[in-house]
Amino acid sequence: MCRPRMNRCVLAAVVCAAWCCVGGAQGQTDPLPSWNDGPAKQAVVEFVRTTTDASSPQFVPPEKRIATFDQDGTLWVEKPVVPQLKYCFDRVPAVAKKKPELKNAEPFKTVLSGDRAAIARLTMPDLEKIAVATLSGITTDEYQAEVEQWLATARHPRWKKPYNELTYQPMQEVLRYLRANGYKTYIVSGGGQDFMRVYAEQTYGIPPEQIVGTIGGTKYGYGKDGRPVLTKAPKLLLNDVEAGKPEGIQLMIGRRPCAAFGNSTGDRQMLEYTKAGAGPRLAVLVLHDDATREYAYGPAQGLPDTKEGTFTQALYDQAKRSGWTVISMKNDWKRIFAFEQ
Amino acid sequence: MCRPRMNRCVLAAVVCAAWCCVGGAQGQTDPLPSWNDGPAKQAVVEFVRTTTDASSPQFVPPEKRIATFDQDGTLWVEKPVVPQLKYCFDRVPAVAKKKPELKNAEPFKTVLSGDRAAIARLTMPDLEKIAVATLSGITTDEYQAEVEQWLATARHPRWKKPYNELTYQPMQEVLRYLRANGYKTYIVSGGGQDFMRVYAEQTYGIPPEQIVGTIGGTKYGYGKDGRPVLTKAPKLLLNDVEAGKPEGIQLMIGRRPCAAFGNSTGDRQMLEYTKAGAGPRLAVLVLHDDATREYAYGPAQGLPDTKEGTFTQALYDQAKRSGWTVISMKNDWKRIFAFEQ
Repeated sequence: MCRPRMNRCVLAAVVCAAWCCVGGAQGQTDPLPSWNDGPAKQAVVEFVRTTTDASSPQFVPPEKRIATFDQDGTLWVEKPVVPQLKYCFDRVPAVAKKKPELKNAEPFKTVLSGDRAAIARLTMPDLEKIAVATLSGITTDEYQAEVEQWLATARHPRWKKPYNELTYQPMQEVLRYLRANGYKTYIVSGGGQDFMRVYAEQTYGIPPEQIVGTIGGTKYGYGKDGRPVLTKAPKLLLNDVEAGKPEGIQLMIGRRPCAAFGNSTGDRQMLEYTKAGAGPRLAVLVLHDDATREYAYGPAQGLPDTKEGTFTQALYDQAKRSGWTVISMKNDWKRIFAFEQ
Repeated sequence: MCRPRMNRCVLAAVVCAAWCCVGGAQGQTDPLPSWNDGPAKQAVVEFVRTTTDASSPQFVPPEKRIATFDQDGTLWVEKPVVPQLKYCFDRVPAVAKKKPELKNAEPFKTVLSGDRAAIARLTMPDLEKIAVATLSGITTDEYQAEVEQWLATARHPRWKKPYNELTYQPMQEVLRYLRANGYKTYIVSGGGQDFMRVYAEQTYGIPPEQIVGTIGGTKYGYGKDGRPVLTKAPKLLLNDVEAGKPEGIQLMIGRRPCAAFGNSTGDRQMLEYTKAGAGPRLAVLVLHDDATREYAYGPAQGLPDTKEGTFTQALYDQAKRSGWTVISMKNDWKRIFAFEQ
């Protein structure tokens, strides 16, 4: 049976052997080199070890290894403005050009004025109007091209870099470490699902089908040339924050995660839901306490910060009470970004 | 580098070599043994060859290899009643026991009467009422347990077998053949997403996260013991038939399939959308023309069958016009079920 293919077999065997040696050597190196030793790093490493060691009583079979990650503030920088929102603001002039009646209508007038203080005061219903105007009425292909174009040109005001270069290197290492150990990694974030899909594969190694975000409906139809198109509709299917996160996980994954990572009250329910499963579960919060290298906000500031959508003192207390791991960016991360040497 | 692990390396090399030989030998055997030679089988084999051969100009990179399958009538028997609907009917007595006011209310009264002719006349709004009553108001865990219980006991009236033993063996071979060639296989079907998730991994090798179905919302909350639960809500997020299929594909996958399989007008848009993509695309319809071994319905009968949800003459004509492949169950399939020898 083997004889006619011996050459191929020998070659394959040599390649496999070489690969195994590299794999073996890698197994002895630090999978999280951008992390300082401490309880946070230890919790992640211990979780992976205990759930993937076949002799462990807490072994999790590969098909059940699911890990979910919030994006804004957990995988990349969310200050001063969440990038998805910045995209919507940046799109307003083009939308107003197509629909001139918006130019003198609020909240578009405020966005077009460029008055930062006034923009910062926009309410949630205002932001929803902006989202509907900038995220619907175009085909999925057109939207993808627009986001690509925006990402290629938009720059963060502090680092003057594209937003997708401002991902946290220690979290990139966690993503790769989990995947190398058979975990399927998902983003579960308040950002738009189709927005994140444009860059997530290249930026995080996470494919479109593993992106759970705030989901708008689409409408199937036919373009001018008769070819089928999907047009983004002004219809909200899932608001992927707070309770929407476990609901989105059920919708898109249908299994409870083994590990979940977040950084704000928007992630509270995802972490509760994850941690409530049987067996070993990892729930992690990123605390932004490094004003020098990134930003400091939430309980690290000792402020009476009770606003939902941020890392409140109540969330910090719940984390401590519930056995969640809190990452101190200042103490647990050796470096924040890949471009820091 | 290699020395301390030499024994492991040698062992791995031998295992790999053995595996490659088996792989090589398998490559020469027929991947679709339950199929007769003919244009349908040839179309499937040729599609896989041309999209996975790295030297082919039509090569598709592994991450883009997506294949979608309707379930009812494409992967398993849908006559005399679609199994999901049968589940709902079978659940009515238990629901009416909990809510006695339903016993004398239509359409529940008709279902409880057992009068098959009257049940067959129930309208779509009637069926929706039954779906809402039987598929919501319970937690996702309770629902899973109920479907498992139903599947273990319900039997098809003709073959007296569990419904998930009535899958088409030739299609099971296509699923495995595609996966062996790097394709990710999805179900995209009108059945309930959470219903199919209960058995699809065991029945088809398709995990919960690759099930696109008709999707109902869930509501996150806390049970009596304070633990987080997701309760199935009477809220329709996606009606996964007709235009809902490409819309559901965008929602759950975010990429256009390379291959799609269906059997009725409910699959028309999925096949159009798939076929409209650039490069090689495979669109396939199963024609039920075998009254002896299974059922015959649709244009095979020469009937003026224009009812949506079935394989109409218009769909057959569109398939011929658009280069879709039509499988004749009678002529293309050597056997229908795994239990036939």
